[in-house]
Amino acid sequence: MTSLSDLPLRDNLRGLIPYGAPQLHVPVALNVNENTHPIPEAVAHDIVASLARAILTVNRYPDREFTELRTNLADYLGHGLTAENIWAANGSNEVLQQVLQAFGGPGRSVLGFSPTYSMYEILASGTGTDWIAGERDADYELSPETAVAWVKKTTPSLVFLCSPNNPTGTPLSLETIAAVYDATDGIVVVDEAYAEFAADGEASALTLLAGRPRLLVSRTMSKAFAFAGARVGYLAADPAVTDAMRLVRLPYHLSALTQAAANAALAHTPEMLAMVDDIRVQRDRLVVELRALGYAPHRSGSNFVLFGGVDDPKATFRALLDQGVLIRDIGIPNHLRVSAGTAAETTAFLSALAGLRAAPSSAE
Amino acid sequence: MTSLSDLPLRDNLRGLIPYGAPQLHVPVALNVNENTHPIPEAVAHDIVASLARAILTVNRYPDREFTELRTNLADYLGHGLTAENIWAANGSNEVLQQVLQAFGGPGRSVLGFSPTYSMYEILASGTGTDWIAGERDADYELSPETAVAWVKKTTPSLVFLCSPNNPTGTPLSLETIAAVYDATDGIVVVDEAYAEFAADGEASALTLLAGRPRLLVSRTMSKAFAFAGARVGYLAADPAVTDAMRLVRLPYHLSALTQAAANAALAHTPEMLAMVDDIRVQRDRLVVELRALGYAPHRSGSNFVLFGGVDDPKATFRALLDQGVLIRDIGIPNHLRVSAGTAAETTAFLSALAGLRAAPSSAE
Repeated sequence: MTSLSDLPLRDNLRGLIPYGAPQLHVPVALNVNENTHPIPEAVAHDIVASLARAILTVNRYPDREFTELRTNLADYLGHGLTAENIWAANGSNEVLQQVLQAFGGPGRSVLGFSPTYSMYEILASGTGTDWIAGERDADYELSPETAVAWVKKTTPSLVFLCSPNNPTGTPLSLETIAAVYDATDGIVVVDEAYAEFAADGEASALTLLAGRPRLLVSRTMSKAFAFAGARVGYLAADPAVTDAMRLVRLPYHLSALTQAAANAALAHTPEMLAMVDDIRVQRDRLVVELRALGYAPHRSGSNFVLFGGVDDPKATFRALLDQGVLIRDIGIPNHLRVSAGTAAETTAFLSALAGLRAAPSSAE
Repeated sequence: MTSLSDLPLRDNLRGLIPYGAPQLHVPVALNVNENTHPIPEAVAHDIVASLARAILTVNRYPDREFTELRTNLADYLGHGLTAENIWAANGSNEVLQQVLQAFGGPGRSVLGFSPTYSMYEILASGTGTDWIAGERDADYELSPETAVAWVKKTTPSLVFLCSPNNPTGTPLSLETIAAVYDATDGIVVVDEAYAEFAADGEASALTLLAGRPRLLVSRTMSKAFAFAGARVGYLAADPAVTDAMRLVRLPYHLSALTQAAANAALAHTPEMLAMVDDIRVQRDRLVVELRALGYAPHRSGSNFVLFGGVDDPKATFRALLDQGVLIRDIGIPNHLRVSAGTAAETTAFLSALAGLRAAPSSAE
């Protein structure tokens, strides 16, 4: 039998294992920051109707420019953006991969601030871009001074700023973003995958785009739009950036079905975003109740909460899973991460965790 | 206003223009080798039903392993293949990009035989793999001797064999494939995007897979399954190869909608492939009638025909377009390429061309 090591694999891939959290089927899955609310039935009907229309011409290649989708995404974002400012791909991972293909690659580097979204380093490796792991301030915060010092020290080709940061949930100030932009001649990407879950009054990096052609703001429909299964990520930037994306994208990379489903969902933005408010309530509840249980939750602007004070994360993870509650051990000592689910799912998690707290000897 | 040249683009992308044929809306579009037959209505209904089920859980990430789809693709291909032998992605372009990410890249090279599918060179460039343009024998044929000589001379990391070849339509013998495999320690990819259109009795490279762990056979649902808009490419190979693909794929790269649509289509394989026989009839008709019109069509095992004897391809292309018939000028002197459409579309093309032949002074 042939094994991977018998094949002429690239050296930098030897010994690696594929990225990905376990896909387990459990009653309460709060491990990968999905939106646990199914799409409202009326919206689902319209999406299916849109898909049914698309199937009639699916024998033809899709609109390579996905102009209707870019227009709808621009309208959704606002801030005076138009279709020319928008790019999209199969999930924000693919958007970021295309950004690295255009502006990174061999001989270039990308700076991020650890701990951060673990795909950044994998995408860097996959495109031959050097990954530079900058450090954060206390409590995973990132001040303008700290960020700029790292930029000046490492002179990266790109900077990836995750706002709010995954897996810590930490919001990022516009001051830090603007300072990083001014400190580099490179591309600055603000990954706002979870932006819709921000606290009231928190401004998006979209407000910084005007006059900053090297600033890219990436978003996803996976979270706020409950569309993780449909794979729609996008970015807003200067039209010159979207021109650059056209040089590296595979032709027809976004299927007619993806375009049809996303367009229909965006036509129901208010209903889709109604779920976001429910999730923010549960997120805030997690912070309060985890603290009451004696844990140390970090502040979060996203749909998940990272909490410290866990004596034995592996044991707690396992004990929760035994009760049908799946959360995430992201490898930070004494920490675990949990997504905010529905009220019932959040209650199930908190109750299970409280039960472990009551009988710590068996759990931790 | 910012232009592309103001951005810190990679040097190898400077001055490039995006790949892609013009997407014009015309009555008879025979330019990009689509299957011009819409999906049968009964099949479309089942696909929509499958999509409707998938939408119910689209808030969750899709099955990262797309196991049901891999099983169905293996069953479709036969030859004793199982899900472990199958990989899939958003179009065969993405499959080939992943192959180059795993086995190509900086310091490595891929050999193809020009003229061939123009995306190979673009995919090579996008992954930092050196592209080597080997040459063919007369009439675009590729003998074992010629292919092996190029392999020995250039010692590539990968060899891409397009069978039948695009844009020439030329079938490729199993002897050439086996000889290339024996002549290299690298990866050999046989791109069988158009395999279903082969003449009766032509064997697929799938029959060569056993005992050849470095041999990959790529396919697509775009053509035979009339699924260009759905973006489903795949490959069959040793299970170790699919393990390699897992190291370079983006997690969740294949959406739940793509998986649902493809699974439903594969459940209707006989109806979907019934269209293939109609198209092969039109393809053979094109060869006969183009010759009768005084052109020099090349033999084709695909759903398109390349024909020579065109005095001024640009003028003929333009004159046909003026009559609502879009074909392809792929840059080979005195040649044009046309896809086999429905009987009515093929007639429209041939009639328009015959009209130009009758009045050559205005057309060529």
